[in-house]
Amino acid sequence: METSLHTLRNAIFGKPLASHEAAHQTISKTVGLAVFASDALSSVAYAPGEILLVLLIGGLVATQLALPIAIAIVIMLLILTISYRQTIFAYPGGGGAYIVARDNISEAVAQVAGAALLTDYILTVAVSITSGWENVSATFPALQPHQTVLSVLTIIFMTVMNLRGVKESGRVFAVPTYFFIVMVAITMVVAAVRYLGGTLPVLAPDPEVVEALKHSAQNLTLLLVLRAFSSGCTALTGVEAISNGITAFKEPKSRNAATTMLVMSTLIAINFIGIVFFAGRMNVLPQFEIDAAGHLHGNSAVLPYMTQALFGGDSIMHWMLVVSTMLILMMAANTSYADFPRLCALQAGDGFLPRQLTFRGGRLVFSWGIVTLAVASIILVILFGGSTSALIPLYAIGVFLSFSISQAGMVLRWHRISKLKPGEVKEVGHSTLHYDKQWAVKMVINAIGAVMAFVVMIIFAVTKFEQGAWITVILIPSLVFVFFRIHRHYKDVAHALSLSVRPLRPHRHDMLTVVMVDDVHIGTVHMVDYALSEGNPWIAVHLDDNPAKTERTIAKWKERLGDSGHELVIVPCPYRNLSETAIAFIQSQLDTSADRYVNVVLGQLVMDTWQAQALHANTNLAFYLGLQRMERVAITNVSYQIHAPEAQAQAIDTAAKAEAAEVLDQSSEAGSTAPPAA
Amino acid sequence: METSLHTLRNAIFGKPLASHEAAHQTISKTVGLAVFASDALSSVAYAPGEILLVLLIGGLVATQLALPIAIAIVIMLLILTISYRQTIFAYPGGGGAYIVARDNISEAVAQVAGAALLTDYILTVAVSITSGWENVSATFPALQPHQTVLSVLTIIFMTVMNLRGVKESGRVFAVPTYFFIVMVAITMVVAAVRYLGGTLPVLAPDPEVVEALKHSAQNLTLLLVLRAFSSGCTALTGVEAISNGITAFKEPKSRNAATTMLVMSTLIAINFIGIVFFAGRMNVLPQFEIDAAGHLHGNSAVLPYMTQALFGGDSIMHWMLVVSTMLILMMAANTSYADFPRLCALQAGDGFLPRQLTFRGGRLVFSWGIVTLAVASIILVILFGGSTSALIPLYAIGVFLSFSISQAGMVLRWHRISKLKPGEVKEVGHSTLHYDKQWAVKMVINAIGAVMAFVVMIIFAVTKFEQGAWITVILIPSLVFVFFRIHRHYKDVAHALSLSVRPLRPHRHDMLTVVMVDDVHIGTVHMVDYALSEGNPWIAVHLDDNPAKTERTIAKWKERLGDSGHELVIVPCPYRNLSETAIAFIQSQLDTSADRYVNVVLGQLVMDTWQAQALHANTNLAFYLGLQRMERVAITNVSYQIHAPEAQAQAIDTAAKAEAAEVLDQSSEAGSTAPPAA
Repeated sequence: METSLHTLRNAIFGKPLASHEAAHQTISKTVGLAVFASDALSSVAYAPGEILLVLLIGGLVATQLALPIAIAIVIMLLILTISYRQTIFAYPGGGGAYIVARDNISEAVAQVAGAALLTDYILTVAVSITSGWENVSATFPALQPHQTVLSVLTIIFMTVMNLRGVKESGRVFAVPTYFFIVMVAITMVVAAVRYLGGTLPVLAPDPEVVEALKHSAQNLTLLLVLRAFSSGCTALTGVEAISNGITAFKEPKSRNAATTMLVMSTLIAINFIGIVFFAGRMNVLPQFEIDAAGHLHGNSAVLPYMTQALFGGDSIMHWMLVVSTMLILMMAANTSYADFPRLCALQAGDGFLPRQLTFRGGRLVFSWGIVTLAVASIILVILFGGSTSALIPLYAIGVFLSFSISQAGMVLRWHRISKLKPGEVKEVGHSTLHYDKQWAVKMVINAIGAVMAFVVMIIFAVTKFEQGAWITVILIPSLVFVFFRIHRHYKDVAHALSLSVRPLRPHRHDMLTVVMVDDVHIGTVHMVDYALSEGNPWIAVHLDDNPAKTERTIAKWKERLGDSGHELVIVPCPYRNLSETAIAFIQSQLDTSADRYVNVVLGQLVMDTWQAQALHANTNLAFYLGLQRMERVAITNVSYQIHAPEAQAQAIDTAAKAEAAEVLDQSSEAGSTAPPAA
Repeated sequence: METSLHTLRNAIFGKPLASHEAAHQTISKTVGLAVFASDALSSVAYAPGEILLVLLIGGLVATQLALPIAIAIVIMLLILTISYRQTIFAYPGGGGAYIVARDNISEAVAQVAGAALLTDYILTVAVSITSGWENVSATFPALQPHQTVLSVLTIIFMTVMNLRGVKESGRVFAVPTYFFIVMVAITMVVAAVRYLGGTLPVLAPDPEVVEALKHSAQNLTLLLVLRAFSSGCTALTGVEAISNGITAFKEPKSRNAATTMLVMSTLIAINFIGIVFFAGRMNVLPQFEIDAAGHLHGNSAVLPYMTQALFGGDSIMHWMLVVSTMLILMMAANTSYADFPRLCALQAGDGFLPRQLTFRGGRLVFSWGIVTLAVASIILVILFGGSTSALIPLYAIGVFLSFSISQAGMVLRWHRISKLKPGEVKEVGHSTLHYDKQWAVKMVINAIGAVMAFVVMIIFAVTKFEQGAWITVILIPSLVFVFFRIHRHYKDVAHALSLSVRPLRPHRHDMLTVVMVDDVHIGTVHMVDYALSEGNPWIAVHLDDNPAKTERTIAKWKERLGDSGHELVIVPCPYRNLSETAIAFIQSQLDTSADRYVNVVLGQLVMDTWQAQALHANTNLAFYLGLQRMERVAITNVSYQIHAPEAQAQAIDTAAKAEAAEVLDQSSEAGSTAPPAA
């Protein structure tokens, strides 16, 4: 059974890799763009739609503001890209907001950055996958009602892929990312050519939509414009991914990562501006409806309608774009599968998250982190009914908070560098400070980045507070609180275990072995075997919760094991609370001397299958839970294997039939002690 | 925490009782009627309605057949009562179908009886509780949609009551049983007086109902009449309950039980005939609807409409009857809570069900049996949407099968008695055969009972096959198959463990102790303490899945425990499959000699709370599961308590701040070995 489980595991997750193979799991720039940049690149699939959905609240005419808003966002992108390139070179070992904050600001701020990023990685998965299915549903409206189920299944599929390891998933996912890049490029080029040639198709606005909007239209307030801006800023989520993942790149890591980042930002800028511009020229709007209360609900997809108009709804181009959008959004979610477990492992290594998150699985990936991410994002998708627009208000606050912290950390770093003499080198945390005569310029760049990211975050939190941003605003500090509670626990445990605090020396105790006898059979002989081999004074104890059975047990002990020279000690247990009675008895033995050590021997019948095991009272757990809380007590498990019934059956056939009665009576040996009712 | 759990447990389930208190848990005839007869007594709440619901398929006029059918059923009741009184005297130790079949027919037939009865006990709970809520819904139609939830909650409530113990639940339930008996008696008397005085209210048939039935009415076939008869036979479910529970009665047990049975049957006969008779005179019909396909669906309640007509819908009498019907149906379900666990324990004692079912809990009740019954009946209620009529076709087959088996067993018993000489006494199984000159008459009585019960069972299985009886027809043989599989397993295990088959003698082995060292801290000192105290040759082993950590561990071992004279043995583990590596290493140690015994020492940090425990890699389980399958290997658990963080926190404050860094580094000791990904 175990072998077939291994085979199944290897088939799904791949063969285990040795630890030293870790170094080989690095990726080229080309693959790196697919693995780390797909989140940012894919945002163009929903960010333009989200801007339009907010502006539509102010009526049709308000949508003309989409282009200026998009340009403002691209300027933000420019500043962030320049800022982050500086970080990449400063932190070749991986310079996410968490590390930069920990090295340059403080542990507490680093935890805030960690909480913010973890929250956003989870949201990236949820938003990308739901948006992917919204794009598909724009072409297949029949899928609309199944969006939640489809999203959850997609996340499960991706989780299995990622448990196979980052390199393979990188390769698998590289092709579709480039597919999307090419598809969008073709769309932009065709749109540009037809625009310049004056043949760009312009959709006639649906008169019903125009009418509905006239009734619902609110005044175009500054708040509305800022809300549209914040929604659009989701296009910038993920630009930091490369700076977190520098170590995954081939050497020279920093240079390759920085180049990849530049390519990525250029692509985002062109695509984002392009889509917003041509959507405006072509009169393309996202699908939406206005409910009874006058609220506007919509589907963030815009690109599919553009390609429908440009190439026709049945054209191969349109279909390829829909497919590639779905795929790149899966790559986007995959970015989180690379970054979330890595950050978890980092924080766990610092003692702010459970240590288990630092363990690499058989395929060298942080399995626990991957599973945590999957579970959390599936919960989000289900809670928000698979709707991208419902998830968007929770999103991006964390990203911009971490941008701001990261850039602020860089500012402090330049400040420290400013104090160095030419040629001087200094170690601070995980990075090396080199003298840099351009420190002032670079400090100003990072400062602008920090301030702008901070302002956007405030705008986001204020304008989206009621729509769901409050959840993130509460969640991030709560996470930080939990992180510090965990940290405190590990510090407490480390202190309690520290041999420098209490330099204990081992010494030999006066040892008594207590063999817990339920019944007398071959398993019991093995327990006595152990007690004899161990060589210390020993006693055999039977808990009497059934006088008739106790009598039989005493008789069998005398007959089978009486020549061991040991009487069976009978401890009354009229209330059938076996583990409590055992604890009281062991305590009475410990009390005979301050240095006494008691080794409690428990028998365990081990069956071949769990079904067979379930037919036997597995009472040892109750004993363990009680006895392990006692000082100077060890618990020894002596197991006895019961093998394949076929073999036994044959044995029975050859054994005398007359034995059947006694054999059946003895089957009570197989387990007749129960844990107490609690 | 443990103390407060105990307090809570005692508040809900009562204080634990000592085993010798078992004998005192017996009941008087008055309480016995409430505990064992309420199932049979309460059947009048649904059996008349179920007869009418079937006859209505044949049109309004067909309902006139209800009375002759009811009379036939009462004749069945008479025969069964006489038959079962003979069983009660023959088996003063409790003579359910299972025991009678085991003693007089064969083990296999006894298992069939057991499967039949267990199935029916579960159905008794499901049918009674859903029928109770249908009766209440007849007065409060608003409750109709919540019937499933209410039924499930009621079952949970009853389960808790029963886990408290049979005597207390008997007392709690005695009052409402008598309440129902009195209420039905008053209803019958008032109806009789008004009938004789010519003032019995007669309901005008609803013209809509008459019209609907005209369209749907089928020919009144023999099949339909037999189906109505089988539905009505559910009134006889539970009459055997007293014969199963004789030991629960006060002395003289058999006489008291027989008297109780006579009282019960008389009450059932009067009430059943009375209700069917007056329902016919008053034109009372159960509520029903005819669906598009012409199928008739209904609610089995009849009594509430009778009392509505007799006393008025707002009268206290009507309300009291509704309440008492609900309560007696709860008592009916409670019959199963007494019998199901008892029969399970009996079958488990014979090795045909898991042994755990023989364990009495802290309150001397068979806790596992009670919980099994509750879970199974809740599943049935949910699957059948809380509808009595949907459950009825599954019901009663098992009861009549067990009736038939039981009476057939008695026939064989009389046959054996016929061979005795006057005054001769013979032991057969669990009963004593006395010479009885009236053996022939008694044998004929039991034979008639056996044949009639068998015929009814066949009628039931055939006429209700499509409606759901097929489930029971498949289920009972399947259960018997499982019972024999379990039996085979226990026989195999008993044989494998038998010292008479293999008379093993314990002997002293050459013992090596292997201390598994993850890191070096106070817990490790305790492990070495154990190894020293045990006094055998020992080695300390570290599995190297992380070279950097291994280096630190070696250094710490040298510094802290180097004077133990033992080097730390390093076993490479590049694939991080810790338990597999450990097993291979232990095997290599075993292989050095055929008599070698290895004691593997594992450390375990024990935290105060489960939250804290969850922050530590609890890897021991993976080691256990692997190592317990090895021969000549014992596993010893040396635990170390980490106590309340408050105490630790204070300690930390007093400890030098400078230690913080080292302390934090050591916290990795708390757990950095993970089980393999499988």
